[in-house]
Amino acid sequence: MLVNGTPYRTVWMDGQVVRMIEQRLLPHRFEVVALRDHRETAQAIRDMVIRGAPAIGAAGGYGMAQAAIEAPVQDFSGYLERAMATLRATRPTARNLFYAIERVWATMDGLAPAEAKAAAIREAAAIADDDVRACQAIGRFGADLIGDGARINTHCNAGWLACVDWGTALSPVYTAARQGKRVFVFVDETRPRNQGASLTAWELAQEHIPHTVIADNASGYFKKRKEIDLVIVGADRIAANGDTANKIGTYPSAVVARENGIPFYVAAPRSTIDLRCATGDQIPIEERPEDEVLSITGAGEDGRVQKVRLVPQGATARNPAFDVTPAEYITGIITERGVVKPTKTAIAGLFA
Amino acid sequence: MLVNGTPYRTVWMDGQVVRMIEQRLLPHRFEVVALRDHRETAQAIRDMVIRGAPAIGAAGGYGMAQAAIEAPVQDFSGYLERAMATLRATRPTARNLFYAIERVWATMDGLAPAEAKAAAIREAAAIADDDVRACQAIGRFGADLIGDGARINTHCNAGWLACVDWGTALSPVYTAARQGKRVFVFVDETRPRNQGASLTAWELAQEHIPHTVIADNASGYFKKRKEIDLVIVGADRIAANGDTANKIGTYPSAVVARENGIPFYVAAPRSTIDLRCATGDQIPIEERPEDEVLSITGAGEDGRVQKVRLVPQGATARNPAFDVTPAEYITGIITERGVVKPTKTAIAGLFA
Repeated sequence: MLVNGTPYRTVWMDGQVVRMIEQRLLPHRFEVVALRDHRETAQAIRDMVIRGAPAIGAAGGYGMAQAAIEAPVQDFSGYLERAMATLRATRPTARNLFYAIERVWATMDGLAPAEAKAAAIREAAAIADDDVRACQAIGRFGADLIGDGARINTHCNAGWLACVDWGTALSPVYTAARQGKRVFVFVDETRPRNQGASLTAWELAQEHIPHTVIADNASGYFKKRKEIDLVIVGADRIAANGDTANKIGTYPSAVVARENGIPFYVAAPRSTIDLRCATGDQIPIEERPEDEVLSITGAGEDGRVQKVRLVPQGATARNPAFDVTPAEYITGIITERGVVKPTKTAIAGLFA
Repeated sequence: MLVNGTPYRTVWMDGQVVRMIEQRLLPHRFEVVALRDHRETAQAIRDMVIRGAPAIGAAGGYGMAQAAIEAPVQDFSGYLERAMATLRATRPTARNLFYAIERVWATMDGLAPAEAKAAAIREAAAIADDDVRACQAIGRFGADLIGDGARINTHCNAGWLACVDWGTALSPVYTAARQGKRVFVFVDETRPRNQGASLTAWELAQEHIPHTVIADNASGYFKKRKEIDLVIVGADRIAANGDTANKIGTYPSAVVARENGIPFYVAAPRSTIDLRCATGDQIPIEERPEDEVLSITGAGEDGRVQKVRLVPQGATARNPAFDVTPAEYITGIITERGVVKPTKTAIAGLFA
């Protein structure tokens, strides 16, 4: 998508260097960082320079390709296994990370180091390209659910910044707008990290999609007043039965949507689906540092990005980063293979 | 309640001057402001130096007493009518404001200016004292609902800072703790103005009540995991049928509580009940300036309280300050006359 008129992906590889948009500085500053080896890439994933399940997946794939390039011939497999462990340990919830790491690992199986390096680089690029194609397809299928004049509510950022390009939850919005439909987006600010206020609002402005930011607390008010026609969110991991882990606050949004008869869609590529998790109870939920709740980052009056403390000295916080929305609250899952009901059979059918 | 060991009320009158705790500086700085006439008091209510329905009511009563003192003999009624209009126009939702203004107005009925001034001062003081007694009684009735070891979730600040003393939603917590029960409070930070993170957390720390701050988005997570035993919130206005207007985000909290079988209580004195509103649909909802969502105030690294911008330049926000929770989601209303079901008959009985 465009950044001030120039097309960008969120993450790409350039020789041995992985480059990604530094998302922690948005919307106040646009910067691209260069990560010289797989350890730096792992650190960037852990520190949330990049976030969003598909984007984390692409970054993980590139990190594996970096590791393959770095690995010494005399300890090729050992080095890669340690790199894989490092990359896997960065974030626990997003399915796509493990999917991408395993896919690059598998492509090297049985190859000599030189061929394995080339294969890893190709596979990491293919993962990113596949994600772009999947997100485009999600946009086409999802746009059919969006009527002219639709008012859409989204939570967190499941736009192109969360993927490689296009996005999951926002791809249908971008596609509908390009089809000439009038759309309006209620952007949940999405505390504690405010990815809605900082990333989704920024993306939508770059693409000239009309929108407004609301406190997460206000989305129930607009749902109850029927000022929201449908909700579309992304996903970090979808269990085999359709239970969906996504950014904290998704579950209450889904409960209130159902209470008000408002369709609630999850948009995600198949790489987010984890058939090995039978239900949402098996999805590990990351609890992140309390400082994300106790403080917040914004632009001061001088434009400098700074952190301010929101609570009394000595206060503590709990900070689960995701919650699980049971399948019963989800109207449908928008994938690159079409929109399916959140049932075990329908989800299994996506892989047939 | 205590501030660093010294007892305080949130608002009081001292000669012709109304003094109140400057709540916009908490928790970073504790300061008391002096308001020299009813116009300054009205401005302080509008600007949310003081907030919380019962505290606004007490401040409005004192503002009327100031106006009575100021009013020239030759235009006594005219001056008071204009002052009443000024005070009424400060905030639209909280019932207590109108209750207190009308009560001071009524007490002057038929009196000569000199007697009317004295009566207004007495009545304003009585409103504040009545609120303290009502909140103590709410604490006693509400404490019976709190078992030893209870984990309580609250939204916004309905503590003593929202009242004159003791609080509504927090009074049962303080009372239970003084009865020797172990309690723990999950404090919703309560965007956009963060009264939970800034005021409730500060109050609870001053009273040594164990607590933790959570993003509003996380309260659904803890409810679903049954880590929350009950929810207690305050109210800005309760309709005759039990529908309750309270801080934005209360409605989704109630919906998710019911979905998980968790009791959801509203705590409020009878002065918050508006029998003239048949249902919640008739309660006016204030929409506040968008800047409250677009920016946030906190303490910088140098300790200075400052505002930072959270969104891209040009972004807009919608900012409804309250929502209405239908009576069907409310387990009971804790009043100074006992705990009642949110039904028309039970509520009418409180005034018998």
